[in-house]
Amino acid sequence: MPSAQASLFTLIAETGGPALADQLRFILEVDKLKSIVRQSPLMTRDRNETDAEHTWHVATMAVVLADFAGPEVDVMRAVRMLLVHDIVEIDAGDTFLYATPEVHAAQEIAERAAADRIFGLLPESQGAELRALWDEFEAHESADAHFARTMDRLQPFLLNVFTDGMGWRKHGVRTSQVRTRMRIVADGSPALHALVERLIDESEARGYLAPG
Amino acid sequence: MPSAQASLFTLIAETGGPALADQLRFILEVDKLKSIVRQSPLMTRDRNETDAEHTWHVATMAVVLADFAGPEVDVMRAVRMLLVHDIVEIDAGDTFLYATPEVHAAQEIAERAAADRIFGLLPESQGAELRALWDEFEAHESADAHFARTMDRLQPFLLNVFTDGMGWRKHGVRTSQVRTRMRIVADGSPALHALVERLIDESEARGYLAPG
Repeated sequence: MPSAQASLFTLIAETGGPALADQLRFILEVDKLKSIVRQSPLMTRDRNETDAEHTWHVATMAVVLADFAGPEVDVMRAVRMLLVHDIVEIDAGDTFLYATPEVHAAQEIAERAAADRIFGLLPESQGAELRALWDEFEAHESADAHFARTMDRLQPFLLNVFTDGMGWRKHGVRTSQVRTRMRIVADGSPALHALVERLIDESEARGYLAPG
Repeated sequence: MPSAQASLFTLIAETGGPALADQLRFILEVDKLKSIVRQSPLMTRDRNETDAEHTWHVATMAVVLADFAGPEVDVMRAVRMLLVHDIVEIDAGDTFLYATPEVHAAQEIAERAAADRIFGLLPESQGAELRALWDEFEAHESADAHFARTMDRLQPFLLNVFTDGMGWRKHGVRTSQVRTRMRIVADGSPALHALVERLIDESEARGYLAPG
């Protein structure tokens, strides 16, 4: 860290206490999420979105599509989960959803190390609390995580469908791959999954997805 | 709208109902927030952030700095408010915080028209609910709005302080202007406002802000 920044954190700790300095260290560190570029295009097709933009979009979707969450889901807890779900990509990078299993396994290890480092910047109990939310998202077992993951899968899917399959065509993605990946939407919302299935059929018919 | 997209919305309404089609229309419309560029730089200084990135950042700050909210604040309600607080800029654009009063007045009119149009895409009761949250943010009277606005002011301030006043220096911003603009932080959190005052002094001493 440049010494000009280090001395600002010293000043913050003196004025507001060491916990606030750690919180601001975390807040300014995760600014890097704005520099991670994803595979999904903007609706304008001018460029791909960043991880920070994706994260805002999925959190907003969770609020708008709250009625599709089961009665046991705490939607705003799912939003908290979503706000931090991708910050590990600051160290570990973004993996294309349709990468090989080997790539995904290596990614998982890198993401755990990233979670240790980045949540570790926060005051201990707060870091542990947000890390537990991230672990819960990754484990995809709880109702809140199912709903959060449904939003996380649905968002790039919609961007692909509404840009004539821009990201899919670039990578030659096949219908069966998308069908498999989108199956978890059913855990969060059977109604949204039914729509996804219909949009997959349509995307294949339109040539956005490679057959088979 | 291109006919390829219009026919997708017809298909969505047939499969999931007209309310879901309207919700997805809103979700895909607000994607444009990723194309509105703000005046604040990224920490990397490579470019300025987008409105969508800013929005993610302030929502995450609200979660991390929740302890600075007064006991009457519903932090996750403030997060909902923050998630939609800037979508009017899709039509109205971003105004630099230190623009003239005339510019700010014209902006306010444009933003109300934008709110009518964009929240109006949603099913009626949901659109009214989110619009009311946006109105509450704009009115800056409630405790939740005070906390949300504190996050909204604090975020670009921190980005300026930690990039040697990059945005301030570009516009020749003076210390007294920042002090006046940052006064509302005291409504959300006196402790954060004390820190802000200390960082303004330091920023002037370092030459990030023009004197006076």
